[in-house]
Amino acid sequence: MAAVQNVSVIYHSIPNGIPTSENLPIVTNTIVATPPTSGVVLEVLFVSLDPFLRGKMRSAETKSYSVAFASGQPVTGFGIARVFASDTLILSKGDIVRSSSIHFSKYQVVDGAGIAQLEKLDNKDNFPLTRYLGILGMPGLTAFYGLYHVGGNLRKGETILVSAATGAVGQVVGQLAKREGLRVVGTAGSDDKVMYLKEELHFDDAWNYHNESAADAIGKYIPEGIDIYFDNVGGELLDAAIENANNFARIIACGAISQAGLPPNKRYKYNNVSLIVGKRIKLQGFIVLDVPQNSPEVVEEFRHKISEFLRKGEIMFKEDIVNGIENTADAFAGIFNGKSFGKTLVQFSD
Amino acid sequence: MAAVQNVSVIYHSIPNGIPTSENLPIVTNTIVATPPTSGVVLEVLFVSLDPFLRGKMRSAETKSYSVAFASGQPVTGFGIARVFASDTLILSKGDIVRSSSIHFSKYQVVDGAGIAQLEKLDNKDNFPLTRYLGILGMPGLTAFYGLYHVGGNLRKGETILVSAATGAVGQVVGQLAKREGLRVVGTAGSDDKVMYLKEELHFDDAWNYHNESAADAIGKYIPEGIDIYFDNVGGELLDAAIENANNFARIIACGAISQAGLPPNKRYKYNNVSLIVGKRIKLQGFIVLDVPQNSPEVVEEFRHKISEFLRKGEIMFKEDIVNGIENTADAFAGIFNGKSFGKTLVQFSD
Repeated sequence: MAAVQNVSVIYHSIPNGIPTSENLPIVTNTIVATPPTSGVVLEVLFVSLDPFLRGKMRSAETKSYSVAFASGQPVTGFGIARVFASDTLILSKGDIVRSSSIHFSKYQVVDGAGIAQLEKLDNKDNFPLTRYLGILGMPGLTAFYGLYHVGGNLRKGETILVSAATGAVGQVVGQLAKREGLRVVGTAGSDDKVMYLKEELHFDDAWNYHNESAADAIGKYIPEGIDIYFDNVGGELLDAAIENANNFARIIACGAISQAGLPPNKRYKYNNVSLIVGKRIKLQGFIVLDVPQNSPEVVEEFRHKISEFLRKGEIMFKEDIVNGIENTADAFAGIFNGKSFGKTLVQFSD
Repeated sequence: MAAVQNVSVIYHSIPNGIPTSENLPIVTNTIVATPPTSGVVLEVLFVSLDPFLRGKMRSAETKSYSVAFASGQPVTGFGIARVFASDTLILSKGDIVRSSSIHFSKYQVVDGAGIAQLEKLDNKDNFPLTRYLGILGMPGLTAFYGLYHVGGNLRKGETILVSAATGAVGQVVGQLAKREGLRVVGTAGSDDKVMYLKEELHFDDAWNYHNESAADAIGKYIPEGIDIYFDNVGGELLDAAIENANNFARIIACGAISQAGLPPNKRYKYNNVSLIVGKRIKLQGFIVLDVPQNSPEVVEEFRHKISEFLRKGEIMFKEDIVNGIENTADAFAGIFNGKSFGKTLVQFSD
């Protein structure tokens, strides 16, 4: 049967900090593009570059909520693919599927047991497919669940700080919080991004964290104190947010990208944790991967609401789509070094 | 009218760490023991020595949830007093009252406006009066509210770690948690206290924090990991508890006695805060003084349940009653240096 040339992003070695193409080389081989019994062959269209993938690039001995990648295997994550060939009744050639088990390869062979991990997208609203990896996908659910169900109890006029605010999660959090009547302040890593937050997403204020220390900036942009902090970065900003939190503040601990991949002795040392008692702060971590199983009703609510906002044009979503599988490692580094702007995806095929 | 000699514990100066009698001198003066119009004169029987008093011994410029003490005025806190003379209809000579505004003095003159701060105790169960400052008072409510309403969602077989476990709050937390079917492990500052926890309060295990590092001890006594940590101490043990927390652990941040009075640059630096995301930890601070206003129904539930446990002899409460107002400063230091054993009170009069 039809042999095709396949190209894959392979997990080769544990990155020292930010991943490079040495850690994530491109490997080419030839595969037979015939579906196994009851399986399919997928042509991968888009893959989603998410911070949690960095957490999987570790020694399998280091415990975490996610399974470590095995060296020599393709990177695996969220993606959108088109069915290239099928030996199933449930999927036909040309169908579009979404999965959290997409190989970062041009082609992926899925056996019968793997079919259950594929979600067929009907996309009756005719949204760009990439939306299903962003605002309608895991990052959107992260924003929605974190803001409403971990933070919760949003009161008009409260101030929320959102870090990594132009990122896949942050931009959704900020826009949802604006809808709720909160004062929304964001941080980002360039003046362009700060401008975008203020001009396009209507954040009340924003600052470039390269230009000002966290403590100075909070004093300047949030003199009234922080009621809610949606934390995507951890480290210095989290510590300063605790120090400048109002009584009964809620800190939604969504990520700690500033601490990604650091060994324990290199991690940021927090000075203000003892203030949590007197300020009655709730600091709560969560992982979006728990949500479908633990709170399926929230997933439904999320889909319904966000689809409606998108149809009505009431919410925006900025994507940073990089073209070509060979640019995957660089694009992934962009999440950590601040070069990406918006939800970062790589397009593997048209 | 009757002049009486009064003796008071005065707040004189900000302590450097643990308070001493230099910070809290005894002052004697003569007062007229006649009630003002619509007021009373109280004879103070017992005062409660609670860690939050240390927080009030600070510069008024340092913001906190509680008002700072004014230098030269008597220390003021929770206490039990007997009405010595009354110009009211609501209180008669000999009545017993409880208040959070008791002066640490032999006699206290309360004017008409202050009467509302006095709670008349009927004590129909004939409990020792000191119980109303301990298990039936603020520390008991702290334990009850913290465990059930901040922690919440207790599941049989989970493991709870309680620090300062022979303290006023810790001993109640541990016994309530045992009733719920949890595995209860405590820390204390002497071998006698550890023995008490295991033999008298039936803790499943306990260790002396002077003998073992937090990390070593948790590995040894809680190899299964921590599901709930009721934190009264902060610092190294809190950091180690985060590191050894199971997924979805709840940390009830009740106090940080190890950090009491430390300037920001001397505070413990926490290394493990970034783990809160992946472990989905909820770390929540609370102050019991909020509870009567925000959750009056919890206060009722608390009174009802704990009174019943006490009547049935199903719960114990160890008190450390120091005799004589002149020993107040030393007794207060005992809370911080580990010399006190159980809820610490001072008896001023019979």
